[in-house]
Amino acid sequence: MLGPGKADLLEGIREAGSIAAAGRAMSMSYKRAWSLVEEMNAAFGEPLVSSSRGGTRGGGAHLTKTGEAVLSHYRKLEQITRAAGEEQIGAIEDLLGDMSVNE
Amino acid sequence: MLGPGKADLLEGIREAGSIAAAGRAMSMSYKRAWSLVEEMNAAFGEPLVSSSRGGTRGGGAHLTKTGEAVLSHYRKLEQITRAAGEEQIGAIEDLLGDMSVNE
Repeated sequence: MLGPGKADLLEGIREAGSIAAAGRAMSMSYKRAWSLVEEMNAAFGEPLVSSSRGGTRGGGAHLTKTGEAVLSHYRKLEQITRAAGEEQIGAIEDLLGDMSVNE
Repeated sequence: MLGPGKADLLEGIREAGSIAAAGRAMSMSYKRAWSLVEEMNAAFGEPLVSSSRGGTRGGGAHLTKTGEAVLSHYRKLEQITRAAGEEQIGAIEDLLGDMSVNE
């Protein structure tokens, strides 16, 4: 229901104030960005993104309170799991070939 | 370089002793299974899977020592991150709709 791509899209919508603009910044088609938003809005108890079409400013989109909460929990989850998994990730990286070593 | 699908494939190869059989058990084409194994073998400093063709038993495949180590680190990583992320995952699940609640 939520992964790195959708989380980035939510963050982009918060920054850009527009689903289309957030999708464009991720090289995503308008259709794809809307489809992901609709999936998320349907999956959660309340919509994560609220959008309006038309009007003097040409419509726009913003995260709902639930959307902000979900994004915040997801980013925290990433931080926590990255820190917790550091040792095992390091062990796997040690076994990777030279081409994968960046530093 | 490694995710849930590839980890499951490595585990399947260890159990089945065959790349084709492991792929079949995951409803994966022979070509796809081989391609994933080749990707992993190329990404790591040493191959993760060793395979032989032909012979009286029709060839076979097994995890190398590096393959065993990588799979073991990956499974441990999953356990650790799942435990560490429990609170945030719970918070996200609480915001999910009724259709996603299984218990």
